[in-house]
Amino acid sequence: MAQLGKVAIVGATGAVGRELCEIIAQRNPTARLSLLASQASHGQEIEVHGRSHTVREVTAESLAKHDVVFFCAGAPRSRQWAPICVEDGALVVDNSSAFRMDPEVPLVVPEVNPWALKPDTRLVANPNCVAAILTVALAPLAKLGHVRRLVLSTYQSASGGGAALMNDLLKETSAYLAETHYEAQIAPHTYAFNLFSHNTPIGEDGANEEEQKVAEETRKIMARPDLGVNVTCIRVPVLRAHSISATVEFEGTAPSVETAREALLSAEGVKVVDFRSANRFPMPSEASGADEVLVGRLRHDPSSPNALCLFACGDQLRKGAALNAVQIAERCLEMRSASPT
Amino acid sequence: MAQLGKVAIVGATGAVGRELCEIIAQRNPTARLSLLASQASHGQEIEVHGRSHTVREVTAESLAKHDVVFFCAGAPRSRQWAPICVEDGALVVDNSSAFRMDPEVPLVVPEVNPWALKPDTRLVANPNCVAAILTVALAPLAKLGHVRRLVLSTYQSASGGGAALMNDLLKETSAYLAETHYEAQIAPHTYAFNLFSHNTPIGEDGANEEEQKVAEETRKIMARPDLGVNVTCIRVPVLRAHSISATVEFEGTAPSVETAREALLSAEGVKVVDFRSANRFPMPSEASGADEVLVGRLRHDPSSPNALCLFACGDQLRKGAALNAVQIAERCLEMRSASPT
Repeated sequence: MAQLGKVAIVGATGAVGRELCEIIAQRNPTARLSLLASQASHGQEIEVHGRSHTVREVTAESLAKHDVVFFCAGAPRSRQWAPICVEDGALVVDNSSAFRMDPEVPLVVPEVNPWALKPDTRLVANPNCVAAILTVALAPLAKLGHVRRLVLSTYQSASGGGAALMNDLLKETSAYLAETHYEAQIAPHTYAFNLFSHNTPIGEDGANEEEQKVAEETRKIMARPDLGVNVTCIRVPVLRAHSISATVEFEGTAPSVETAREALLSAEGVKVVDFRSANRFPMPSEASGADEVLVGRLRHDPSSPNALCLFACGDQLRKGAALNAVQIAERCLEMRSASPT
Repeated sequence: MAQLGKVAIVGATGAVGRELCEIIAQRNPTARLSLLASQASHGQEIEVHGRSHTVREVTAESLAKHDVVFFCAGAPRSRQWAPICVEDGALVVDNSSAFRMDPEVPLVVPEVNPWALKPDTRLVANPNCVAAILTVALAPLAKLGHVRRLVLSTYQSASGGGAALMNDLLKETSAYLAETHYEAQIAPHTYAFNLFSHNTPIGEDGANEEEQKVAEETRKIMARPDLGVNVTCIRVPVLRAHSISATVEFEGTAPSVETAREALLSAEGVKVVDFRSANRFPMPSEASGADEVLVGRLRHDPSSPNALCLFACGDQLRKGAALNAVQIAERCLEMRSASPT
């Protein structure tokens, strides 16, 4: 595996940042980590794989001279600093939405569209968590026929709203059980034993921003600008893995369930969990901490000969964010070392 | 409102039975309640609206001479006793699946297919909770055009598995937060902060029994044997309200969102909760305890000119079970008193 070298993580104190630190320490133990965050976190100590690191404020100086910089501190911070890092010679992997739809910037899930990376790529966007998890499950099926339309409903975990929303879910649930009150920090609605429509602003067409991202990013990753995407994004009281109920419509008759299962069984990044007699299918509890996207409930759509149904779960912080970002960086560095200079 | 008279509730100690007692006491305070259950519960005291009732064992004697008998103790008990109660002259409303697909027995949601009830109806089946909640939201739209196909994903609460599953969810979540272990009584998988595919047996087509029920009961209630239904049933860690993400496909171009909203606003049993700028849409926390089915996230399907999307929530114990059963009984008795003898 490619060595990442000197690595900066901007937003190291957040849920994705912490996960990035752990994943890099696991997969790339020789990497030297610089943990960066806002001024408020300067001086904070963070333990990564048993070793303590001091968080520093993001500045031009603290960012300089890294081989790889991961941004996970929101779009404004990425827009401000990413071009400076690229200029400085770093490979930048941006977890925010800042550059995802920029036609000059590849938006990559390595199992799905590695071809979007070139040996001289300097800036790569890491997709929305639902789009990343979805496309891993979808790519093997898209090789079996022309996918025309997706009808999706999501079951999104608290981690998508960061550490603060995970904390709200835990604290509010504790308070509910103790019959006391907890004042939520960021949860927009009751969250204990409740669910709600993803609370991003709604556009004129009635879709919220999350749904817009899932649709347009899925199209970009799959290189299918014409793909129909109908998605409903719902936040559920689960901690860190997203689930997706998907109906995949093909242009003609859908491939058989057996063909689809074979394709998924041999696909990179997928683990088929589809045991009908044991009633065992993908669940957030099993997806959490896993690298693979779990896929199951594979069946024909009884309402259309052209469609297949499936249910997928993926760790929002790993494949939906940090793991995919690290895989992007690894793939880029491998391409560079394989490419004639 | 029709007076129910002498009412027996078989399965009075269960989650639906308890809700039935409360709803009857609220809506029909003159009704005289007989609370019946298995031998194990004989002698148990249950408080209904501040008044104590003694539970008796279900026997031919304890069941005799009632005006209305509600069954909510599972299909075998309904099959055993319902015909005897009908023979005895009672109106029977059965909450189990025993008679739902019997062509001789009406399956009724009063807002949707009241015509299925006749003045001499003696036995009525109360639908599956998802089918009941769904059809309330669907019926007003089905008046606007020919619905061809439904693509549904559910977010089903613990109450669908009865009081025991609600208890498992609460206890297991407490244990998770306290970092201790709780041995679930009936939950088939981890339930605290987790979700799982509905754990009913899976048929050869890959659908589980719950999904089969939703599909066939929706067709029967809507009197649309040809309706295409694609449904994925998922259990979520919510206590007592079910949610449904629905794509409603019409034969031709879908009605406009405004037309659909108007139809829903004037529909019986529906409350439109669709406030885009405030990001307020149907949630289990607001559906719980309510009589109406909440409907929102109304929008055009961006992937098809023929479809509309919506998100609905309904109290599983009320409209999904007990309330609908009481409304059926009320409607039957009203028809009888309005009908010439």
